[in-house]
Amino acid sequence: MREAVEQLLSRMTRQEKLGQLQIAYRPKLDDAKELVRSGTGSVFWPRSSRATNELQRVAVEETRLGIPLLVGLDVIHGQRTIFPIPLALAASFDPAVAEVCARVSARESASGGVTWTFSPMIDVSRDPRWGRVVEGFGEDPYLNGVFGAAMVRGYQGESLSDPDSMIACAKHFVAYGQPEGGRDYNTVDVSVQRLRNVYLEPFRMAVEAGARTVMAAFNTVSGRPAHVHEGLLTGILKEEWGFAGAVVGDADGVGNLIAHGVAEDLRDGLAQAYAAGLDIEMGGNALGVDGRSPLTDQDVVASRLDDAVRRVLLLKSELGLFERPYADESREVLAPTPESRAAARAAAERSIVLLKNDGTLPIPAGPRRVLLVGPYAESTDHLGAWVQSHAEPSGSLADAIRSLQPDWSLAIAPGADFFGGDPHLHEAARAAAADADLVIVAVGEPSAITGEASSRSDLRLPGDQEALISAIADSGVPSVVVLFNGRPLVTSAWIDRAPVVLEAWHLGTEAPAAVLRILTGEVNPAGRLPMSFPRSPGQVPIYYAHENTGRPARSAAVLGEERRDVGLHGPDNTDDRYTSKYLDLELGPEFPFGHGLSYTTFEYGDIRLERDTIPLRDLQHGATISVGVQVTNTGDLDGDEVIQVFLRDRVASLAQPVRRLCAFTRATLAAGESVALSFPIGAQQLGFWDNDARFRVESGTFEFHVGGGLSGTREALLRVTR
Amino acid sequence: MREAVEQLLSRMTRQEKLGQLQIAYRPKLDDAKELVRSGTGSVFWPRSSRATNELQRVAVEETRLGIPLLVGLDVIHGQRTIFPIPLALAASFDPAVAEVCARVSARESASGGVTWTFSPMIDVSRDPRWGRVVEGFGEDPYLNGVFGAAMVRGYQGESLSDPDSMIACAKHFVAYGQPEGGRDYNTVDVSVQRLRNVYLEPFRMAVEAGARTVMAAFNTVSGRPAHVHEGLLTGILKEEWGFAGAVVGDADGVGNLIAHGVAEDLRDGLAQAYAAGLDIEMGGNALGVDGRSPLTDQDVVASRLDDAVRRVLLLKSELGLFERPYADESREVLAPTPESRAAARAAAERSIVLLKNDGTLPIPAGPRRVLLVGPYAESTDHLGAWVQSHAEPSGSLADAIRSLQPDWSLAIAPGADFFGGDPHLHEAARAAAADADLVIVAVGEPSAITGEASSRSDLRLPGDQEALISAIADSGVPSVVVLFNGRPLVTSAWIDRAPVVLEAWHLGTEAPAAVLRILTGEVNPAGRLPMSFPRSPGQVPIYYAHENTGRPARSAAVLGEERRDVGLHGPDNTDDRYTSKYLDLELGPEFPFGHGLSYTTFEYGDIRLERDTIPLRDLQHGATISVGVQVTNTGDLDGDEVIQVFLRDRVASLAQPVRRLCAFTRATLAAGESVALSFPIGAQQLGFWDNDARFRVESGTFEFHVGGGLSGTREALLRVTR
Repeated sequence: MREAVEQLLSRMTRQEKLGQLQIAYRPKLDDAKELVRSGTGSVFWPRSSRATNELQRVAVEETRLGIPLLVGLDVIHGQRTIFPIPLALAASFDPAVAEVCARVSARESASGGVTWTFSPMIDVSRDPRWGRVVEGFGEDPYLNGVFGAAMVRGYQGESLSDPDSMIACAKHFVAYGQPEGGRDYNTVDVSVQRLRNVYLEPFRMAVEAGARTVMAAFNTVSGRPAHVHEGLLTGILKEEWGFAGAVVGDADGVGNLIAHGVAEDLRDGLAQAYAAGLDIEMGGNALGVDGRSPLTDQDVVASRLDDAVRRVLLLKSELGLFERPYADESREVLAPTPESRAAARAAAERSIVLLKNDGTLPIPAGPRRVLLVGPYAESTDHLGAWVQSHAEPSGSLADAIRSLQPDWSLAIAPGADFFGGDPHLHEAARAAAADADLVIVAVGEPSAITGEASSRSDLRLPGDQEALISAIADSGVPSVVVLFNGRPLVTSAWIDRAPVVLEAWHLGTEAPAAVLRILTGEVNPAGRLPMSFPRSPGQVPIYYAHENTGRPARSAAVLGEERRDVGLHGPDNTDDRYTSKYLDLELGPEFPFGHGLSYTTFEYGDIRLERDTIPLRDLQHGATISVGVQVTNTGDLDGDEVIQVFLRDRVASLAQPVRRLCAFTRATLAAGESVALSFPIGAQQLGFWDNDARFRVESGTFEFHVGGGLSGTREALLRVTR
Repeated sequence: MREAVEQLLSRMTRQEKLGQLQIAYRPKLDDAKELVRSGTGSVFWPRSSRATNELQRVAVEETRLGIPLLVGLDVIHGQRTIFPIPLALAASFDPAVAEVCARVSARESASGGVTWTFSPMIDVSRDPRWGRVVEGFGEDPYLNGVFGAAMVRGYQGESLSDPDSMIACAKHFVAYGQPEGGRDYNTVDVSVQRLRNVYLEPFRMAVEAGARTVMAAFNTVSGRPAHVHEGLLTGILKEEWGFAGAVVGDADGVGNLIAHGVAEDLRDGLAQAYAAGLDIEMGGNALGVDGRSPLTDQDVVASRLDDAVRRVLLLKSELGLFERPYADESREVLAPTPESRAAARAAAERSIVLLKNDGTLPIPAGPRRVLLVGPYAESTDHLGAWVQSHAEPSGSLADAIRSLQPDWSLAIAPGADFFGGDPHLHEAARAAAADADLVIVAVGEPSAITGEASSRSDLRLPGDQEALISAIADSGVPSVVVLFNGRPLVTSAWIDRAPVVLEAWHLGTEAPAAVLRILTGEVNPAGRLPMSFPRSPGQVPIYYAHENTGRPARSAAVLGEERRDVGLHGPDNTDDRYTSKYLDLELGPEFPFGHGLSYTTFEYGDIRLERDTIPLRDLQHGATISVGVQVTNTGDLDGDEVIQVFLRDRVASLAQPVRRLCAFTRATLAAGESVALSFPIGAQQLGFWDNDARFRVESGTFEFHVGGGLSGTREALLRVTR
């Protein structure tokens, strides 16, 4: 394979090489053909297997060397069959769900000729203002890494040469998830230790899982845009990690270097980007495949250019494109199958998080009068951000109730609006509630205000939906709030008035049926939040794995006029005044990471450490210990439990997170059933990166906290001796 | 001096040395005496010259070596005569104001026996949630540096041996102003380049101005708490900058290392802190002056201990304490003098910022019916955060009007409450407005919710004050909103309904008179905002000197349901959708840094660069060019103009701020008067620090923007050639 690539490379002209380094977008097929004819090596999917084959044919038959194309597309959480948004997939705490999503996506996409998706996004983000949190796996590095790796496995399958596989792309390298102010594309400033411990870690895991491409991020990393960051693209990714795949730019990422103020012009930007380690430029035609490249021979060393081309050709070779450039048009999947629908529904069910429940859920079987209110009652906006017009639509929640719960007497009232506000709607909904046994309040955030370039400064339910929740609470009729949204929301204005709240995200083609099956208890919810829900936008960033301050607060403050005379009070603060908190907020988030309820109950036994002491040297030589725990379903219903293992390094040379997720699993337990679980823990989990880019495992005491969330955990201590 | 110190040092026991490294707080004089008797080297001010002399006498007469004490106190913006809060001082854009504040403070404090103040705070902060923004000089590094240096000069005077001088303390070293979430004491994570360019720069300037002490910050800097950060305390501060003074810890900062999770216990914390370069521990009695020191001989190298003691003894020697340990009790200043009051009033007048004016201000002379409403109408809470019970109180705005504007017919209505909310008050105020020619709406943020440990997640006027502003607007009577506050506020709910808004901060003892003199035009306002006012807490951090993104927005977004099919739209974004902004906010802050109006008008001539091209080598060898501009008062009133010089490095190896303040001055111009100004610019201004801690001056084009604020500036280009 490599030999064939080398032979091909040796025959290529400089212009042909540049062509291989370009992925170009041309919405009109004839324009795309022209571009392929002049040598461009990768295109965006032209929306059918037939059109793809036409382009491949031009590449194979009408170019001198006949090199087939990479065909890219943003397949983020489904191509025809739409799965839950990635943030919701993470809420399943079940990487198998993500792997199935990716596998189904690959099969559907590849059948149409797609060879490459720009997914998964594994940008750790602690800022729900950022619209792209919808596209990633939340606030935790390890969760992002596990889910990213699962997606990579799903997309790429056992072998890229499998016709059901496509190339994955781990993005965005790196730290794109922490733009200042949560404003998309904004500056990222970060220390070496945090870059490594938080933002790079999921990429390390995705590359280890075999991701064959990585996308450079739009943002600067401490001043230097990722597209020209040699230390990242070459130093860490290619050299330290041995990444042999290709680095692709983000759309116009090289052109954007001019606005960043680090490149004089496109030529300068390209020269810097290729020197830094970029392999494929994404955008218009920056490299000048039409023969008018701004790059001169002097701008990029020939060996670097060859290295980039080699990486691209290798991908094509691994895909088997040289042998089989064409998709089988008769096998193109144009719509979901029963199997893909079942998989999407199961994924949706597993992604739902029960935030609050006073026992109203599950809704017992039998006839009842149900009022469905809210702008999500009849909305079909369940697919979420980053789906395309060929995706299979979902029905509405109203549709699902009508078809799946025929013994319910269903009334519907809009109740509120996503963007408007008409008090008569709330009043009408409240009046209608009087005739109902149960009100389902279907509210949320339309997908159009989530995703890329969709930062929000206000994290409340938009429009007048909060007023609707209050109106229904005023009615006194039992009610359930179902949230459909793509980011953590601020719920503080109404959360205390809503006794039952279900987080239903944007769950894809099968969303309504999945929600209904959770409401009725056909499925027992077990999802967990992959991101903290803040009490206020002014509390952002708030995340569980924060470092401790020197003055942690033990109690909340009260906003008031108490004054202190520091001259009397002195600098030695023994009370809880001079501690780290807001004057106007309770401590902690509204709902923490890892939170989620069930219709059954679980009990944890004591944590059993294989050993409670281990020499540092053993860890450094690869030893692990197992952390064991027995979990029992103590309720009357079958259900899943998400067992979460957190650790804390009590004393270290750098302040460490107060909790750090180091292992988790989702277990299905019949009522009364017990399971014994064990998790291996080694240097990888116990260590951390310092600011000199050294991975350190330090002696001392480590706490393990095991449970179904961050609170109510069982604890054990491990001593690492010198 | 140094010789005497060395001789003394050579005679000291280890226990005596440890005593010199402790500053302790004992509110009861007898307890303090006991501590001094057992060897503690520094105390907090015991609240009078007499008590201070008693303590000094114990130190001098009852200890073996008779070493006098350093006497510390948090004198932040005045001791008896209270000047504006530091954030307001910065708004004067006149460092002479800060220098006078510090000089008066030093005179009053030193007369009572204080030898050391823990001021100035020069923590650049871009987060108004952080309560301590009140105590610093805002969002700009250069402004913080200039004001910090002025305060240092004011406190320390020509010589520390001058009995009117005291030691300054530049704090908090470093980056304390950027805690995550704006939550006091929280984690700070920052790159090397930003640490140097933004947070360290004011400290470099303060040390250059002679600051004799520096206080370590509570926070971690990229994981490592500042109290144990050898790279900062020793590497940069003492070695790179040659700082020969003493590094003092913040209150319990060493003890807090245990909560940070970097020290096992106090002994471990002390050992790490002294190894890192701490000289004086602030807190209880961590070092064990009573003879029970947790530190063993092995914990700190003797030479490091001697170095710390040497630094302390040198300060005492510089103060002349060995010769004159006692304050002259007959000269103790216990109350403001007419001169100090005049200085405080002038400072307050120069700190006021006119945010909006439709011509209602200044209020013409003559009788009129004035309604004064709002919780600040009769409040005397004008001193601001960080004053002590011995400070001279201010009167209220109502008092000032009664005594200074006897020809006004004054009515007063509370109108609203800082923390409560009674709609009848708004209604009563609106009704009262019908009988007035003018309404002054005196609203704000009580000082008790500003300052240390006073982070707010909500930046609006607290209580029901916004409703009062609306009620007065509804009345249709001309009105002026006067804001009294200690941080940038979010005004977006009401700003469009308020035609005139005056930012009056917490201005100190003379606040009411100063505000009134601005309202009536006896003084023409010229203050400028030292920090951006955000549109929403969800827009934080927003600051003028941000780096450009690769996708800057040209127009605001509209929150709505428009959906894009990316498959059709493609990755090549040519419109303004995929740019850096919030879906739900206008671009930019509500009021930018540098903003402030006048009752007169100013015109700027063209910028004259001494040369428009300069070789890089010349800059590196110290060459400067001057940037000149002529400014004319084109109105009918005398007034001050703040001339601000911003630069932009168009293309650099790291993304640079879109604007960077590199020079400014405040000029007084009579009506019709012109002045020609010039500002020297050299490598110091044009260069920046990179992530390898190298200061770089790069060739290329630099823009200069000169004006009375960020907008409407005149421009010129400088070419730096290779």
